[in-house]
Amino acid sequence: MHTPSFHPPARVLMGPGPSDVHPRILEALARPTIGHLDPRFVAMMEEVKQLLQYAFQTANPLTFPVSAPGSAGMETCFVNLVEPGEKVVVCRNGVFGGRMVENVARCGGVPVVVDDPWGRPVDPQRLEDTLEAHPDARIVAFVHAETSTGVRSDARTLVDIAHRHDCLTIVDAVTSLGGIELRVDEWGIDAIYSGTQKCLSCVPGLSPVSFGERAVEKIRQRRHKVQSWFLDLNLVMGYWGSGAKRSYHHTAPVNSLYALHEALVLLQEEGLENAWERHWRHHHALREGLAGLGIEYVVDEAHRLPQLNAVRIPDGVDDAAVRRRLLEEYGLEIGAGLGDFAGQVWRIGLMGHAANARNVLLCLSALRAVL
Amino acid sequence: MHTPSFHPPARVLMGPGPSDVHPRILEALARPTIGHLDPRFVAMMEEVKQLLQYAFQTANPLTFPVSAPGSAGMETCFVNLVEPGEKVVVCRNGVFGGRMVENVARCGGVPVVVDDPWGRPVDPQRLEDTLEAHPDARIVAFVHAETSTGVRSDARTLVDIAHRHDCLTIVDAVTSLGGIELRVDEWGIDAIYSGTQKCLSCVPGLSPVSFGERAVEKIRQRRHKVQSWFLDLNLVMGYWGSGAKRSYHHTAPVNSLYALHEALVLLQEEGLENAWERHWRHHHALREGLAGLGIEYVVDEAHRLPQLNAVRIPDGVDDAAVRRRLLEEYGLEIGAGLGDFAGQVWRIGLMGHAANARNVLLCLSALRAVL
Repeated sequence: MHTPSFHPPARVLMGPGPSDVHPRILEALARPTIGHLDPRFVAMMEEVKQLLQYAFQTANPLTFPVSAPGSAGMETCFVNLVEPGEKVVVCRNGVFGGRMVENVARCGGVPVVVDDPWGRPVDPQRLEDTLEAHPDARIVAFVHAETSTGVRSDARTLVDIAHRHDCLTIVDAVTSLGGIELRVDEWGIDAIYSGTQKCLSCVPGLSPVSFGERAVEKIRQRRHKVQSWFLDLNLVMGYWGSGAKRSYHHTAPVNSLYALHEALVLLQEEGLENAWERHWRHHHALREGLAGLGIEYVVDEAHRLPQLNAVRIPDGVDDAAVRRRLLEEYGLEIGAGLGDFAGQVWRIGLMGHAANARNVLLCLSALRAVL
Repeated sequence: MHTPSFHPPARVLMGPGPSDVHPRILEALARPTIGHLDPRFVAMMEEVKQLLQYAFQTANPLTFPVSAPGSAGMETCFVNLVEPGEKVVVCRNGVFGGRMVENVARCGGVPVVVDDPWGRPVDPQRLEDTLEAHPDARIVAFVHAETSTGVRSDARTLVDIAHRHDCLTIVDAVTSLGGIELRVDEWGIDAIYSGTQKCLSCVPGLSPVSFGERAVEKIRQRRHKVQSWFLDLNLVMGYWGSGAKRSYHHTAPVNSLYALHEALVLLQEEGLENAWERHWRHHHALREGLAGLGIEYVVDEAHRLPQLNAVRIPDGVDDAAVRRRLLEEYGLEIGAGLGDFAGQVWRIGLMGHAANARNVLLCLSALRAVL
């Protein structure tokens, strides 16, 4: 056996993530590794925290990237905030709400599910009714931008309702961070997690999280130990916290953090609002082009994500064959449907660096050629 | 706030890890990101599995890298193999044995601890006695190469004892994989985890694991769901398993996997036994030089790790000041003592690509200059 080095084919990534990584981020990624307790590295960690605070629009001191992908960021929120026996209301309108339910159950929590149809946002009234029926609920969890359906829910309103019922909130912002308006402090979100491989245009593998004061207080005063050692924030805070002395918890993914730092520097250079606007602009161009091809959106216009365009596969079209041809002939990746939408829906991403005019044209021309 | 890009200082990494990353690995890391379900990426994943089987010396089909650092690899083993109420014997002779005890408790297992002094290997007789006293124990866990103390324990013998008492074995090989002799199949290890940032010279952030047939059987027949969704091998197998169809579980850390692939290609090019021999050769050179400086090892010669040289800080020497001068004046990182050894011990790594003649000379000359 003599395995040669791997050279990836040239692709344009317009699926549900990973999205195309900016060349400056790849360059940062490849800089020489230094120690995870090196004073220069620790100084960079402080910058990552500040830059993430900007991206999340928060002043939360406990804002940092978990050393694993978004689903570990999700688990970080649940294992730290849910105590065994606690009732957690989960709004489910796609795959990731379903994953939240799994998380609650595995923490020993009692999930109460508010179901909305795939392709629809979470219904605030239904959340309100559920909370009235379950006054002992302690947490409300929902997905801001459902990657499986391309739906945006009204995070601000849902958080307000949760707070009026004395619940903390856990928000999935994996696909929203850096792509659409998201204001953690103004909206009062208590715990939030995201991913690096979507609208930040960074490599996959890290999950930025942020926790507000009440969430941190709850974690500090837990009655049961957090079931995960790796994700226990009471321990992780010793490394990522703001104390003078960093204590070793686990070896940080040094190079991935270089990449995230650069991704956030790029976001700061562009300006957060400008990045949000750019996602809308290219989404509108793509939408016009798709309409010209007779391709329809799954989601009502009012609730669409600009960065994730879920569209119906036209009748009589072979899903897998089209995606294969796009990939093989044009090096273009678009996403398949997930879960209930498998075989019926394509997910066309315009995320981060990939949200640009060139990609919109490529996607439309290639679809026209193949269909 | 305008944060500039981060440029790490030039370092030589001779601490307990991360170790110097080979330039070819950094180059692979920076290749353009492709989709985690792209057929070309999936083919690369198969190669990573085969190359890891070679590195671990195993034919286990369930051999793959967990998408998070070594401590998540540890947790993967415990949350999947320990059922609530089960008795687990943990051999503890350093920090990482202690972390195993924490893991057992957080899984609802009942830890039975076999303590050996820091700087000493696990005593097989003590394990034997403990297993006789606890015939209901189901698992034995120990650390092959204790990164906190520089000690090598006799994995083969410990596994034999465990098996004679009908226990499965979980082995920490974070610092041993690629550095010293390790033969998963020949020694009969049931579950093992490692890290990428030690003797594989790869970037930190992944944890190669391997599970034998009996371990997989136990995981498949669990009575309780695995408490971690992210680390549940029953789910992860759908993505990393050998079936024709890959199902999405989480977004794989694509670029880190490019890097691991290249690290394993390098290991294959050199040959595993040659890599082990190289670690010993440079260790012997370092040992001679340290003796010339009057610096003593913590561990008896028979149980030393060539890749992690734990030495006593000479009397009257200021630990932090020396390490700071090495770092600032020579760009050389060596490791501080951890836990019981803090302030008393330095840990000099010769891991992977960093185990070379140039580094041995640099380390000895710099120590001579500074002391």
